[in-house]
Amino acid sequence: MYNNCLVGQSGGPTAVINASVAGVINNAVKSAEIDHVYGVVNGIEGVMQERIFDFDKEDYKELKMLRYTPSSILGSCRYKLKDFNTSDAEYVKIFNVFKKYHIKYFFYIGGNDSMDTVDKLSSYAKATGFEIYIIGIPKTIDNDLNGTDHTPGYGSAAKFIATSVMEIARDGDAYEKDIINIVEVMGRNTGWLAAASALARCDYLGAPDLIYLPETTFDLDEFLSDVSDCYHQKKRITIVVSEGIKNERGDYVFDNKQNSTCLKDSFGHTQMGGTGFILGKIVRDKILRRVKVIELGILQRCAMHFASMTDVDEAYQCGYDAVDYALDGNNGQMVSIKRLSNEPYAILTTLVPIGEVANVEKKIPLDLIDVKNRFVKKEVIDYIKPLIIGEVPINTENGLPRFANLKKRFVEIVR
Amino acid sequence: MYNNCLVGQSGGPTAVINASVAGVINNAVKSAEIDHVYGVVNGIEGVMQERIFDFDKEDYKELKMLRYTPSSILGSCRYKLKDFNTSDAEYVKIFNVFKKYHIKYFFYIGGNDSMDTVDKLSSYAKATGFEIYIIGIPKTIDNDLNGTDHTPGYGSAAKFIATSVMEIARDGDAYEKDIINIVEVMGRNTGWLAAASALARCDYLGAPDLIYLPETTFDLDEFLSDVSDCYHQKKRITIVVSEGIKNERGDYVFDNKQNSTCLKDSFGHTQMGGTGFILGKIVRDKILRRVKVIELGILQRCAMHFASMTDVDEAYQCGYDAVDYALDGNNGQMVSIKRLSNEPYAILTTLVPIGEVANVEKKIPLDLIDVKNRFVKKEVIDYIKPLIIGEVPINTENGLPRFANLKKRFVEIVR
Repeated sequence: MYNNCLVGQSGGPTAVINASVAGVINNAVKSAEIDHVYGVVNGIEGVMQERIFDFDKEDYKELKMLRYTPSSILGSCRYKLKDFNTSDAEYVKIFNVFKKYHIKYFFYIGGNDSMDTVDKLSSYAKATGFEIYIIGIPKTIDNDLNGTDHTPGYGSAAKFIATSVMEIARDGDAYEKDIINIVEVMGRNTGWLAAASALARCDYLGAPDLIYLPETTFDLDEFLSDVSDCYHQKKRITIVVSEGIKNERGDYVFDNKQNSTCLKDSFGHTQMGGTGFILGKIVRDKILRRVKVIELGILQRCAMHFASMTDVDEAYQCGYDAVDYALDGNNGQMVSIKRLSNEPYAILTTLVPIGEVANVEKKIPLDLIDVKNRFVKKEVIDYIKPLIIGEVPINTENGLPRFANLKKRFVEIVR
Repeated sequence: MYNNCLVGQSGGPTAVINASVAGVINNAVKSAEIDHVYGVVNGIEGVMQERIFDFDKEDYKELKMLRYTPSSILGSCRYKLKDFNTSDAEYVKIFNVFKKYHIKYFFYIGGNDSMDTVDKLSSYAKATGFEIYIIGIPKTIDNDLNGTDHTPGYGSAAKFIATSVMEIARDGDAYEKDIINIVEVMGRNTGWLAAASALARCDYLGAPDLIYLPETTFDLDEFLSDVSDCYHQKKRITIVVSEGIKNERGDYVFDNKQNSTCLKDSFGHTQMGGTGFILGKIVRDKILRRVKVIELGILQRCAMHFASMTDVDEAYQCGYDAVDYALDGNNGQMVSIKRLSNEPYAILTTLVPIGEVANVEKKIPLDLIDVKNRFVKKEVIDYIKPLIIGEVPINTENGLPRFANLKKRFVEIVR
């Protein structure tokens, strides 16, 4: 009888989600209690399809590169399990696969929705008396997970956004001509990513001049008046907007008749994008013809080439520690980051019951937003600052990043 | 009587245009024949406005950072001088400033249009017997300058584009879901930037799957058929399009009724952007709903955080050597890069008469384009490959790049 472990990824990719896989592997292979370290392709969907492979069969050189390889190398999914009290067909399927592959430890790396999966699977295991230790490992560039100081993935996205805003503002300053840059960043309901742009501002750079967050109501007239005032004062300005800014009715600004490509994912979330484009059009009509709209888009989550070393290290540690927590007999918990001190910055990992995490979104507290100046307060900047420290050693080949590649040949179980 | 030198920047910013300024300064300050090393704010426009400052008065620590600071730190302009045979008012003004500030050497860093300025100024100097040595220093991410193997600025943009395409394709591969990524890159009339994306393709990455260049006719039906075939075969594909792709009538695909924000700059060039957006809409309607459009936009030219070391070094060398060429008595010439060998890669600088450069655009030769497979031939890849080698040491402060800052306090001449 084997005791194997399985690791899967779910939700949107980040620059550091593979560092968590590396952490799981490096700790699990050392453990006498774990026989095989398996990976599953495309998360829980892949479990149902038995798309399971053995890290042991992979090239060691490639596995070593995992830590600095962006995007979800195992493959991801967005799959919402039904409530097992209503329909347990999916659960029967999944636990049959766990049984067949002797999975005693299951690690699931993801965000809010993925923790919902961890919650349901661990509850089902408890309800049916199936012995398995399921641990969630946090991941999301949005930093919207409850129960953890911050999420792995956020620091690298924050660093990329602040750096890009800095470079974009410099670019705008090259000309004597007036310019309004509008930078659209990700963030459906939370403004942590937009807030990270605030780190670019310093004594020699005013950008970002205005930041618009989903936490506060977006009023178009107010926006135009802010932008107009700021522009007339400074002539070359850079504005950062969250894709998810909402009007006083709580509707996305994006979600209007000017753009009908409003899509929903399988969790029912509206797919954003276009906010900057629409605002750019309006500003061009009303304030200044020379407007540049920069939608940072998926570069925010896949750019490993200027990722945060702190973030990579923490993602790795969350994966590494998850194995210890599972071996200690925990189930239905998420690894959480606890900040011990800010200067010097120090963290440790701990556990949080998954029910406190799943399906809750952590927003920027309203009292930390400087609504009047369209900025964030010092507390927010101090909170983000340590998360972007350090640069990642990029392994290059012919001048381009050389990322890991896995063969992922499926395990064949003969019974 | 002083012999001073003046350096200015013009045209679009690049990641390495300041490295050329650093090259000029570092050579000029050593020369016994040059008294003051001046910079001019906003190019030739700034000369007319006497916005001239002395590098000697700047903080040495800041000047040291110039080499790795993106965008045009001196400030840029897009100003087209009139033909002096028609109207010499601007020339009288400019040469009065040269006289007043004892400018004997003038270095102008820019692209096609800037070389037009160098051409006209040096011709006017010759026609009027004014002793001045004017040298053009090449700069443009587009790589469309005649008379040089390639241009400083191109290598870094090429590296950023190829890296981004690699990371975007990885991001798309995270999901099992079908996806068509459309990456829009800069390039009005030449496809060098789009072609650089080809470097991302390797034995473990198919992206970019299709590349569309302005050099060949863009036919929408052909495009849809290419994309449809490629998509049905591979399910997750990445397409790169130049912003300047043209239809069989030679019109920009962008320049249609779906988008009326077509602007022109003062050289009469149409301001691009939106090509990817329009194509994305069409592909979404006709082939697949899940289309991501990524417009790399100005990040291509301002991203120093993953610039090419080769490019930075060559930009510096062009600036450095320009001083020697001027001291040798050359006038109305551009510094040009000559490739001595590809393996090992070696270059030297030489001079090219400015008339061969100004107002000419170097395109990708048609016989080096693989029209059938919507790709570029091996010769193009071999040509670009050495230009993206090496990473730049980024000086960071709080996890963000720390770029140079200049005070630029104007020189006051009392006569």
